[in-house]
Amino acid sequence: MAQTRTHSGVHRLAIVGVGMMGGSIALAARERAHVDEVVGFDTDAGALEEALRRGVITETATSAGEAAAYADLVVVSTPVRSIPSSVEECAAADPKPRLITDTGSTKSAIMQSLSPEARALFVGGHPMCGAADAGVRFSRPDLFEKSNYFLCTTGAAFPRLYAMLQQFIVDLGAHPILIDPRAHDQIMAVISHVPHVLANALMEHAGSLCVGGKRALQWVGASFTDLTRVAGANPPMWRDIFLENREALADSLGAVCAALQDFSAHLRDSDEAGVVEAIDAAASYRQEMLESADITPETLFKVTVRVPDIPGSISRVMTALGDAEINVEDLTLHHMSRSVGGDLVLFVTGEEVAEKAAGLLNDLGYPSRVSFMGDGSE
Amino acid sequence: MAQTRTHSGVHRLAIVGVGMMGGSIALAARERAHVDEVVGFDTDAGALEEALRRGVITETATSAGEAAAYADLVVVSTPVRSIPSSVEECAAADPKPRLITDTGSTKSAIMQSLSPEARALFVGGHPMCGAADAGVRFSRPDLFEKSNYFLCTTGAAFPRLYAMLQQFIVDLGAHPILIDPRAHDQIMAVISHVPHVLANALMEHAGSLCVGGKRALQWVGASFTDLTRVAGANPPMWRDIFLENREALADSLGAVCAALQDFSAHLRDSDEAGVVEAIDAAASYRQEMLESADITPETLFKVTVRVPDIPGSISRVMTALGDAEINVEDLTLHHMSRSVGGDLVLFVTGEEVAEKAAGLLNDLGYPSRVSFMGDGSE
Repeated sequence: MAQTRTHSGVHRLAIVGVGMMGGSIALAARERAHVDEVVGFDTDAGALEEALRRGVITETATSAGEAAAYADLVVVSTPVRSIPSSVEECAAADPKPRLITDTGSTKSAIMQSLSPEARALFVGGHPMCGAADAGVRFSRPDLFEKSNYFLCTTGAAFPRLYAMLQQFIVDLGAHPILIDPRAHDQIMAVISHVPHVLANALMEHAGSLCVGGKRALQWVGASFTDLTRVAGANPPMWRDIFLENREALADSLGAVCAALQDFSAHLRDSDEAGVVEAIDAAASYRQEMLESADITPETLFKVTVRVPDIPGSISRVMTALGDAEINVEDLTLHHMSRSVGGDLVLFVTGEEVAEKAAGLLNDLGYPSRVSFMGDGSE
Repeated sequence: MAQTRTHSGVHRLAIVGVGMMGGSIALAARERAHVDEVVGFDTDAGALEEALRRGVITETATSAGEAAAYADLVVVSTPVRSIPSSVEECAAADPKPRLITDTGSTKSAIMQSLSPEARALFVGGHPMCGAADAGVRFSRPDLFEKSNYFLCTTGAAFPRLYAMLQQFIVDLGAHPILIDPRAHDQIMAVISHVPHVLANALMEHAGSLCVGGKRALQWVGASFTDLTRVAGANPPMWRDIFLENREALADSLGAVCAALQDFSAHLRDSDEAGVVEAIDAAASYRQEMLESADITPETLFKVTVRVPDIPGSISRVMTALGDAEINVEDLTLHHMSRSVGGDLVLFVTGEEVAEKAAGLLNDLGYPSRVSFMGDGSE
């Protein structure tokens, strides 16, 4: 992959759909990729106007086709289900743009639907960075810094156009990764879409449970809130993602269901070995995941600190640790209520460091305790 | 529920199994419940010795039965599957103790297995507080402060002995809640055991996925790590919990599986309404959950702050917010790597407060952005 600062060849960029993602590509392109002209189009006239006013784009167009004409690169950054029609419109521009890409979070359905004309100009893209914030006002030029950026090609636009997009992505600050569209969708199903479906299913199941006059939701703890943090997120966006990736997602859900049914069978048979095997497999994959994320779980210790729910208490905790040069690898707050406060859980490397942290915080009046990370949970 | 400081009537307490939980009950009983004598027993002679040395207990016994004789209250705090035999041994002591309870995290199987003699003396208990830390050295007298404490009775020990235990629990600082053992187990299945099984199943499914030369685990983001935080936790402890609660757990897993299969059917049928309904149901239950936890989601905003992975950076962020009297309701750190740093995600109430926080942190050199909490996620 070319990491040198040769020019990608993109002088004129078109952005179709000037939301947070499209806007961030525009800003990053101008700041980092030597792009001078950015023409924008959006079906929402207000959003387009705002993008121009904020200086995210340099000019506006009245259609996707108009934006695409004369462009070296068109980035289609509309909601995932409208991407194919926008791409076709851009591919039919006169004169044709040199290259079209998109930012959709699924890839197979989009790429399969394209006409041969569009396909010849198209390389699919999926930036793996925070797409949570809607609206051009959340655009920022550093969004892609050190993030992964998947690229999918049908082969038709390979290799010259691919190399051009690859260089452009590198210029944005991201790591381009060539991947087969089906592999991409299978991986996204497992690491992103299935977690959302599981969170939704668990939330709905627990939400409806009321036994002996007690509602289950009343008693949830940290493991439940961790698992349901993304439950019910952005219905229109997730409806589209789920449906666009329905094949890989349904396959993946089928596999998870089969695993749950196997586990239930172990339970009904009181099969201890089967139960332990399932836990052990999860433990070893999780260790692998943490290791690949640069954290060694064998040395990771947890410091649980009870903090009151008043401004400044977490700050005092973190200041004390910072002053003592204690590095926090990861942290999470289990909020209980305004009256009681919460448990701040800090992950630090090494038992000595953890004990030092807990001692320091106990001295400050925050009851703290150390535990080894693999010890269990509520 | 009696909240007055009348004495529970427990003068002599026996602890069978002096781990973190048993030890914490001993410490809290002496500090807060006017208990003078605490006799301990543990099959691990080293742990028993340590409990005495640390002053957690005042004397040791050579068997559960010896500890139970003459005790007003026996707390059996051994691993969940050995609780019934320990309770029987205590109930057969001469003289009999006045009352026996336990701290097992499942209740039906234990209570059903007891002999009539044991049942007459037994009220089941389940403290809902951090049982993650193994070993008497993690005992602390404030463990139960403002936590929920489930109590289950067969009716045999009701109401006099129940009132005694209830007062003792109040003295420890907890809120006693009477619940039917089956309702307890169903609720625990849903809010704690199912989340662990889902985390394990997702971790195993994703862990084994390798397509197109790419391993899925390489690309996981925040939603995946949130969902698998408890994956593979403490295999011996969770094996016992899963098996003890196998009936309610298998039922609950069956219901979750059915929901996943329904959702897959919506996907395969491209049934938009069905997909949206599932997301909406989860969203509304999640809102209810957050509201019952004293946080109003309509006003909850997310501030995402890029922080370098060096000691003190989170502290500087939290200090700046504390100085500005900005209260953080919840927070989580998405650790990426040592070289890149991570995204600190802060939840604050009100858009103005969120914008103020982000402005302040941007000024300090930490790139920050605000989003509405319901906007989606990666």
